[in-house]
Amino acid sequence: MMGILPFLLGLLSMVPAGAQVFTLSEMYGTITSPNFPEPYPKDAEIFWNISVPEGFQIRLYFLHFDLEPSYLCEYDYVKVEADGEELAVFCGHEDSDTEHVPGEHVISSPRSSLSVSFRSDFSNEERFSGFKSHYSAVDVDECRDSNDEDLACDHFCHNYIGGFYCSCRYGYLLHSDNRTCRVECRDNVFSERSGVLSSSNFPNPYPKSSDCQYRIELEDGFLITLEFDDPFDIEDHPDVICPYDFVKIQAGTNEYGPFCGDRSPGRIQTESNKVQMFFHSDNSGENIGWKMSYTSYGSLCPAPVKPLNGQLDPVQIQYSFKDHVLVSCEPGYRLIQDGEELEHFEIKCQKDGSWSSSDPLCKKMESWRNS
Amino acid sequence: MMGILPFLLGLLSMVPAGAQVFTLSEMYGTITSPNFPEPYPKDAEIFWNISVPEGFQIRLYFLHFDLEPSYLCEYDYVKVEADGEELAVFCGHEDSDTEHVPGEHVISSPRSSLSVSFRSDFSNEERFSGFKSHYSAVDVDECRDSNDEDLACDHFCHNYIGGFYCSCRYGYLLHSDNRTCRVECRDNVFSERSGVLSSSNFPNPYPKSSDCQYRIELEDGFLITLEFDDPFDIEDHPDVICPYDFVKIQAGTNEYGPFCGDRSPGRIQTESNKVQMFFHSDNSGENIGWKMSYTSYGSLCPAPVKPLNGQLDPVQIQYSFKDHVLVSCEPGYRLIQDGEELEHFEIKCQKDGSWSSSDPLCKKMESWRNS
Repeated sequence: MMGILPFLLGLLSMVPAGAQVFTLSEMYGTITSPNFPEPYPKDAEIFWNISVPEGFQIRLYFLHFDLEPSYLCEYDYVKVEADGEELAVFCGHEDSDTEHVPGEHVISSPRSSLSVSFRSDFSNEERFSGFKSHYSAVDVDECRDSNDEDLACDHFCHNYIGGFYCSCRYGYLLHSDNRTCRVECRDNVFSERSGVLSSSNFPNPYPKSSDCQYRIELEDGFLITLEFDDPFDIEDHPDVICPYDFVKIQAGTNEYGPFCGDRSPGRIQTESNKVQMFFHSDNSGENIGWKMSYTSYGSLCPAPVKPLNGQLDPVQIQYSFKDHVLVSCEPGYRLIQDGEELEHFEIKCQKDGSWSSSDPLCKKMESWRNS
Repeated sequence: MMGILPFLLGLLSMVPAGAQVFTLSEMYGTITSPNFPEPYPKDAEIFWNISVPEGFQIRLYFLHFDLEPSYLCEYDYVKVEADGEELAVFCGHEDSDTEHVPGEHVISSPRSSLSVSFRSDFSNEERFSGFKSHYSAVDVDECRDSNDEDLACDHFCHNYIGGFYCSCRYGYLLHSDNRTCRVECRDNVFSERSGVLSSSNFPNPYPKSSDCQYRIELEDGFLITLEFDDPFDIEDHPDVICPYDFVKIQAGTNEYGPFCGDRSPGRIQTESNKVQMFFHSDNSGENIGWKMSYTSYGSLCPAPVKPLNGQLDPVQIQYSFKDHVLVSCEPGYRLIQDGEELEHFEIKCQKDGSWSSSDPLCKKMESWRNS
């Protein structure tokens, strides 16, 4: 949007002492040479400063033009300026082809102000009828004309007379910047022992202006391992570390990241049963984001000792938290645990890495009865 | 411009009892189904009456649409109406191709009001998320869009946001109808004995809405003859005599006309030394007008009698007012008028058709001296 500075600069553009200055702030109007349609006087100098509200441009065009012709319009002229820049200088008659006459030419102001000046010199051999011009404010279609990508609407743009506004696709919320579309993504909780997470829309670009939070919460005794897939694509910067978008991970007292760019962080073994992952995106960029799978494993227990004449089920290379092992004895033997005779017995690998009870024994039935 | 009647008719368009009615008069806004983006309730009936100032149209479009589909949209629907006419009825989902979904379709109101209604029936098997639409007022470019020739500008049309105005070419004045361009043509006085008159711009179309007056004023004693040329072309009517544009002539107590159509009135011998001609044009038509030459002749005098031994100069078939005749005598004769001897003598044909004096005589010099 236009600031006040170019406007002031426009007004200050060298108005000579003694010149007449008119300020026009209507949405349309006419500007004519003095005395029009009678010939204009000599030695006249007039400025018209047109300004309309922001969100509008000004169109100016001439329907009659008859000024003294001169080389480079050095004698009498009409000059059109905006923001301190000269847009056109006209002199001469409509019928002449040697001067710069406005003809059908329509002048558009780059912003919402425009100034027109008229000058006649000290003498004219003939009398010239002058000019008549019209101006009108024209709505700027910001949705069609905006060249500044940083000001454009993220999803939908709606023009109205004098301005525009943005809106978002179904499922998105307009950010407080009134431009980008964010998603609500704070309450993603994962409690399964393994799973898959990704940025919204993956592998399509992730939403802008969003702060997503993902929590993996397993019970005490599990340790979570994260594995980021390829492709990994988060907006980055060649010199500054992840100033725009980033992934950050907190696992117990450990922090990982920030991560960004196109190199996946790969595998992260967290040593924690609780992982919080933050994903921040700013208001620009079209990166596709990330996808991650997680797995978890419990604390390891020492391999249980198979009792003499007994067996364990299942037999594993290693045993971890929550693993159960069924201990049973061969035929003719009885399972004895803490002095009691049992058919079979289950031991559990506990979260501290110890088994839930000591190893049972298998005793020969006869010998046990007779003892 | 829109009258109040269609507006009232629009409002009256059968709003059932129990329906909710919203009046929207902002220049832009959004309309959504109830509870959007949550599913809409059953048994809902809502009307939105949008009206913007005259000189604007309303554009309406949808960015989300998900209603219960039904044959001919008989269950749930969104209906768009203007001035009592149905512009569109929509139902179904964006992805279905069997229902009438709005898609990218933009609805434009013919005038400055539009009504949107939403209805849901008593039951839905699924839950539908409803719709979200946007509307905005759009300036009508009357200069480009006006189909009514009677309302169009005669010369130049200038659109502005919310309206338009007309202006005229250099040399013309805007009529009080703010549309047609008239000329100032009341003071055309002709005092030469012959001349040519024509409608302005002849043979290009004459100006509209003008009342021109032409006076031919010769001195007493002349009689003016008018002769209209071909082509003659003044707007007429097949049944009514010259109801639009006409020429009327007053000469003394005689009136001629009104004249119109494409047949020249030809020659009019007025018997008067003063002619007033009126030419009226209305606010429409592209006829080329008329061209007329006038001549005048004075009262006729009887042929002067050539004196014996004398001569007249010039000798004409007839003599009229203002004609002078020089009377002179052959060598050896003297001109005698009222007892005086003159070298030559001039008689004038007077406005009443008599000569200014009686005929002189030529007498032989000798005989006169000796007598």
